[in-house]
Amino acid sequence: MCAELYPICTELMVFIKSDSYGNKALANPLLSRGHGIWGFMWEISKELEAMLVFAEHRYYGESMPFGDKSFSNLKNLNYFTSEQALADFAVLIRNLKQTIHGAQTSPVIAIGGSYGGMLAAWFRMKYPNIIVGALAASAPIWLFENLTACGDFNTIVTNDFLKSGKGCSESIRNSWDAINKLSSTAEGLNFLSHALHLCSPLQASDVASFKSWLSNTWVNLAMVDYPYAADFLQPLPAWPIKVVCSFLKDPSLPAKSLMQNIFQALNVYFNYTGNAQCLNISQTATSNLDDQGWYYQTCTEMVMPSCSDGVKDMFEPVPWNLQQYSDNCKKDWGLRPRPDWITTVYGGEKISSHSNIVFSNGGLDPWASGGVTKSISDTLIAIIIPEGAHHLDLRSRNDKDPISVQKARALEVEYIKKWIQEARNESMPYTTCFA
Amino acid sequence: MCAELYPICTELMVFIKSDSYGNKALANPLLSRGHGIWGFMWEISKELEAMLVFAEHRYYGESMPFGDKSFSNLKNLNYFTSEQALADFAVLIRNLKQTIHGAQTSPVIAIGGSYGGMLAAWFRMKYPNIIVGALAASAPIWLFENLTACGDFNTIVTNDFLKSGKGCSESIRNSWDAINKLSSTAEGLNFLSHALHLCSPLQASDVASFKSWLSNTWVNLAMVDYPYAADFLQPLPAWPIKVVCSFLKDPSLPAKSLMQNIFQALNVYFNYTGNAQCLNISQTATSNLDDQGWYYQTCTEMVMPSCSDGVKDMFEPVPWNLQQYSDNCKKDWGLRPRPDWITTVYGGEKISSHSNIVFSNGGLDPWASGGVTKSISDTLIAIIIPEGAHHLDLRSRNDKDPISVQKARALEVEYIKKWIQEARNESMPYTTCFA
Repeated sequence: MCAELYPICTELMVFIKSDSYGNKALANPLLSRGHGIWGFMWEISKELEAMLVFAEHRYYGESMPFGDKSFSNLKNLNYFTSEQALADFAVLIRNLKQTIHGAQTSPVIAIGGSYGGMLAAWFRMKYPNIIVGALAASAPIWLFENLTACGDFNTIVTNDFLKSGKGCSESIRNSWDAINKLSSTAEGLNFLSHALHLCSPLQASDVASFKSWLSNTWVNLAMVDYPYAADFLQPLPAWPIKVVCSFLKDPSLPAKSLMQNIFQALNVYFNYTGNAQCLNISQTATSNLDDQGWYYQTCTEMVMPSCSDGVKDMFEPVPWNLQQYSDNCKKDWGLRPRPDWITTVYGGEKISSHSNIVFSNGGLDPWASGGVTKSISDTLIAIIIPEGAHHLDLRSRNDKDPISVQKARALEVEYIKKWIQEARNESMPYTTCFA
Repeated sequence: MCAELYPICTELMVFIKSDSYGNKALANPLLSRGHGIWGFMWEISKELEAMLVFAEHRYYGESMPFGDKSFSNLKNLNYFTSEQALADFAVLIRNLKQTIHGAQTSPVIAIGGSYGGMLAAWFRMKYPNIIVGALAASAPIWLFENLTACGDFNTIVTNDFLKSGKGCSESIRNSWDAINKLSSTAEGLNFLSHALHLCSPLQASDVASFKSWLSNTWVNLAMVDYPYAADFLQPLPAWPIKVVCSFLKDPSLPAKSLMQNIFQALNVYFNYTGNAQCLNISQTATSNLDDQGWYYQTCTEMVMPSCSDGVKDMFEPVPWNLQQYSDNCKKDWGLRPRPDWITTVYGGEKISSHSNIVFSNGGLDPWASGGVTKSISDTLIAIIIPEGAHHLDLRSRNDKDPISVQKARALEVEYIKKWIQEARNESMPYTTCFA
């Protein structure tokens, strides 16, 4: 209840809409409002009587500083950093508070998932004057420099498949040799093209991207291994990895049979609706303009070392090679990344002096490898959702939700309420709102 | 005592060398090493067995990113912000820790005075991962937007003169009318030129800058009203305002006599050494290249509203006029300032979530008007030095030091030791240093 002077005593919540995954989902209004991927924010904004603001990151979605020329040259790209994005959010919120009657003293909470979660956490670290707290869901803020072993990400992906069906991760591990073997002959390439229903015949020169498309698919499945049918990256059944693994029970099959099974598995991901005529290896889950933005960022600030060894994980062994990574950036963008900048500017592991951030991570989510999974202090809280994939907690409440995510959400709301109450207590002389 | 693995267990102290005052003083090696203006750092670095690093702000001193073209156009100036300077300091310290054997785990303290003090405080706020604490001496971090009344600065200047001799501030207050009267005739201008020993004859068109030169001189005197002979902006006697005021006892004198006394007063400031042949009204205390840098910054980020009313202060009434201020910036630099940015990015009054900053302010120092003069928490500490002018506490210890500054320095060292100890305790597993 609010006194007359302040007819709107809303708490502002800023949802940080940033990376390509988020934008893709938000493009679908059914998903963005009250349903699906960001449903939690809609639900709790009602509960908290909060205004919900979706703040878009510059150079993503419609926020192009130079229109369709924003990516045409490095000069136009020069304003594209996470720090600039945080500054935008700060200016946006100040402006909202100054222009929305009654909002001047409203505490603001930032919420984000994935890169948006990193931004939410960093926003609180850098602008504690602007937001009173942040919920950083599945935010891999420690996936930089040498804070996390480069193989941990792929180990989590692998464990998801390992636990979802006997022979499953082993089938995928064995598939690489099968592909190498088959792709060494014209007949084998032809077989793969047909067996996997590829839209274009596989060429020897495509094999590397083919394998990378496969790897990405397994990674994406790990991210969206939700307990109910959902459409985040793709329309998928409940626990999609279990469904995938139902086709990958026998890792000892000969190459051709193994690859036929791999097709069945891929079909779960790419053709759950049954509408796909063929599989397109240049289609990735995130193939849209916004990918360009994230790719640029990986070549400037967002260097997350990644590797696989084929032992702790089911992928072909690929060591982390910063030089090659940097050379690719040079080739594609004309610049080289600064791998040590993010830890310098956002503190790396030394974040204990900050406050009021909840870091939530899903046990199934490979991004949890670089997440804050242990509480750092009374006000820097880690929440683990063992049955959760990528920011499951930010999705709408669902009957099939495991208890762990229900508990996580309840705790998140509790912290948000606490931060709001503390902020209100501090600014009591200026507000006349009463609960 | 340090274990063998870490032969150098030094604590790093970064002194942030930034504004023109600081650079001018540092150009004189006698002043910079062990003496004078920054002597305190040299003294305590010995006491703490610390390495002392003077970090220069980009676009000041020798740190010109585009050499002598750094100020030639806005494009070259585009990298000149306080945020960029802080990022430089962060990268510098990381680099020092990585390259100096044994320094990897050394806690770092930032110390600065004036703008350097603001930077020290902001550095701790934005990079608590890099420095464990900051001493912000005479740092007017609240002299922005409407956090401080625009006239408070000039009120403090005036009080310094008011308290330093009967009739003193009143003489200065009356001098403006005397100047207006005299400068309205050719004879009067000629009188002023001779009576004040001006290097060039005063023209009617110079009168505004003449008055501004006078005002600046009174302001500068307030900044350097030290208890012993010193050379910060100019070589000066002990308690220079008292000496100045010894010539300004009778505010009721007729215009010409009053101005002859004003000359005697000015002579204290500009000719204490007796070497000046004439007074140059285009000479300000800070007339060097570095002024250009600060002037640019006042036209981008550093908008500190200032005004006088002739009642609470001894100056001619000049209201704060942001439009005119902005127009001047547009004329001189081709850009307009962002008066609300500093409070957005550095928190304005909302800094209570930060920690480990000592804000020291001198009671005589006009910049204290925008300083943090009340402790905000157990770890955001305000220290007042009633008899102190502009960052007196950072000067070398001196027999004539008032008790208040001795106590302030002792307390500052105590806090610095506390921060270092706390940081050591936190990183115990990584260090083998013992006190």
